[in-house]
Amino acid sequence: MAGETNRQWLLVNRPDGVPSESDFKMAASPVPEPGEGEFVARALFLSVDPYMRGRMRDVKSYAPPAPLGEVMGGGVVGQVVASKTPVFAEGDIVQGNFGWQEYAVSDGTDVRTVDASLAPISTAVGVLGMPGMTAYFGLLEVGQPVAGETVVVSAASGAVGSVVGQVAKINGCRTVGIAGGAEKCAYLTDVLGFDAALDYKATPDLRAALADACPDGIDVYFDNVGGATLDAVLSLINLHARIAICGMISEYNLTAPELAPRPTRALLVNRARMQGLLVHDWADRRAEGIAQMAAWIKEGKLRYKEDVVEGIENMPAAFLRLLRGENFGKQLVKAGDPD
Amino acid sequence: MAGETNRQWLLVNRPDGVPSESDFKMAASPVPEPGEGEFVARALFLSVDPYMRGRMRDVKSYAPPAPLGEVMGGGVVGQVVASKTPVFAEGDIVQGNFGWQEYAVSDGTDVRTVDASLAPISTAVGVLGMPGMTAYFGLLEVGQPVAGETVVVSAASGAVGSVVGQVAKINGCRTVGIAGGAEKCAYLTDVLGFDAALDYKATPDLRAALADACPDGIDVYFDNVGGATLDAVLSLINLHARIAICGMISEYNLTAPELAPRPTRALLVNRARMQGLLVHDWADRRAEGIAQMAAWIKEGKLRYKEDVVEGIENMPAAFLRLLRGENFGKQLVKAGDPD
Repeated sequence: MAGETNRQWLLVNRPDGVPSESDFKMAASPVPEPGEGEFVARALFLSVDPYMRGRMRDVKSYAPPAPLGEVMGGGVVGQVVASKTPVFAEGDIVQGNFGWQEYAVSDGTDVRTVDASLAPISTAVGVLGMPGMTAYFGLLEVGQPVAGETVVVSAASGAVGSVVGQVAKINGCRTVGIAGGAEKCAYLTDVLGFDAALDYKATPDLRAALADACPDGIDVYFDNVGGATLDAVLSLINLHARIAICGMISEYNLTAPELAPRPTRALLVNRARMQGLLVHDWADRRAEGIAQMAAWIKEGKLRYKEDVVEGIENMPAAFLRLLRGENFGKQLVKAGDPD
Repeated sequence: MAGETNRQWLLVNRPDGVPSESDFKMAASPVPEPGEGEFVARALFLSVDPYMRGRMRDVKSYAPPAPLGEVMGGGVVGQVVASKTPVFAEGDIVQGNFGWQEYAVSDGTDVRTVDASLAPISTAVGVLGMPGMTAYFGLLEVGQPVAGETVVVSAASGAVGSVVGQVAKINGCRTVGIAGGAEKCAYLTDVLGFDAALDYKATPDLRAALADACPDGIDVYFDNVGGATLDAVLSLINLHARIAICGMISEYNLTAPELAPRPTRALLVNRARMQGLLVHDWADRRAEGIAQMAAWIKEGKLRYKEDVVEGIENMPAAFLRLLRGENFGKQLVKAGDPD
């Protein structure tokens, strides 16, 4: 590797509103060497996730903001190319928060070895990674769906939403997805087995469409988008409904918080619950989640879709298209093939 | 009783905004006679509660609206004056939803006999009744306070809030109350043992005052008022905070919902929970709640305060002063003495 360069994407600006490619800058540094107890991983698949918009802000969130002038953080599936730790061997496929770069040095913190026999290795940042585990634990632990109930999920064709809906179906629920565009909606009902799908871009009155699609009301809402969609759902919830707040992509680019009626009246009248979630809270149960999800994949009960952009040079572009909802399935950037 | 009249308060108008006495009308009817399986109770103490404002509206809530032209509903402690059921004997002190009237006929549904040895009978609609059970189960089951955590409660000197704060103290929490006026705040700290009390009427920046009073942040908020107080609390919550939505008296007289930033970002960032509650959900555990609360009263760990207006003719006036926050303690109207 000596003499090769490590292409890296730095965060160089905190945008107000919609981000642009110029908020990032590509840099090149020498490929790092591992110190004692460390290894170096070469990126194969970089994960592109909505939460990254939050890291661009300089405000408290569940993780510190990404520092300006440094490599953007993010989950990566990579291959160990040099190691000075007995835990990871050269050639191992690993997953960790290696960031937007080709080569990362790591001491192994929060890194796991990827079992390629379970599913393609890209799934380690998808259906068997953070998004999949978010959906699995978030739906089951916060949503607590009961067979026969109605589960609604937004951003339903995305990495998280598509799993939420399928796990809800596996649990015997009526499942309604909200997505943007006819193609995504057809995928939800025809491929993933959702009971109904609503195209928010083609639906002038989302509340009325939801009421039609949910004749028995809404028991569980898994919210990935926030905004007016959440307001519409709140007007249709049932007694003891559960609302899992996972994301709010429709609000991420707002320069000031949108004002809306408080949800408290709907929560009080229905003795309903609204709860924010983060997958890290179930980190100690990840093995259980991966095993169950991998089994469902092998049984044909759980499908997933990946949207792969080639080349690390396209990382910001892939991120921006995700924020615009132009991806179809889990957004990945492929940086290379394993040896 | 034949020949006596039964004074009753009818709801005759659904107000927009602040109610007035003219929304109610006093009527007189003959004192009823019990049919087979029924009894007649004479009112001793009528409960006056914030939720009654909601019943004046013609919208879905956790109970149907009060019908126009009929007796307003409400909890009452009464004495059985005639009975054709073996379950209740003449002379029994009973508590039921007998409404705003002197005499009520009942088939015993949702009626319980009051044990006068536990505490004064008026407490059957106060600290040992709906408000007390709301506080007890709402705090413990939804708030789930842990020793050492900080619990904030609004309308803290009221029938529900005063119990919430004391039960939080019994559970080893730092307890901060929000109330209107110096006298109520002094009562919270000096009599009830709250760690701090904030007078919202004299506090220009409630958020800053809360931040001062809660140096370790807010773990549990028991919300009786809604509105801007809730918004301020949300900006100070800790990881995994619990927000129990019990009431929103600051919003009850609004003619249109107030707009505010959605709470979802605070819930997501802190993986916090916001949940509406209603005491009926723990109806099967009422005996447990009454026994525990009565024991704390006897041990001197739990105090209560009643604000008694004399005369059923003053029922609407007592209700309006409650909505204005002019009561100090559980608002009651005394309609008579037991035989």
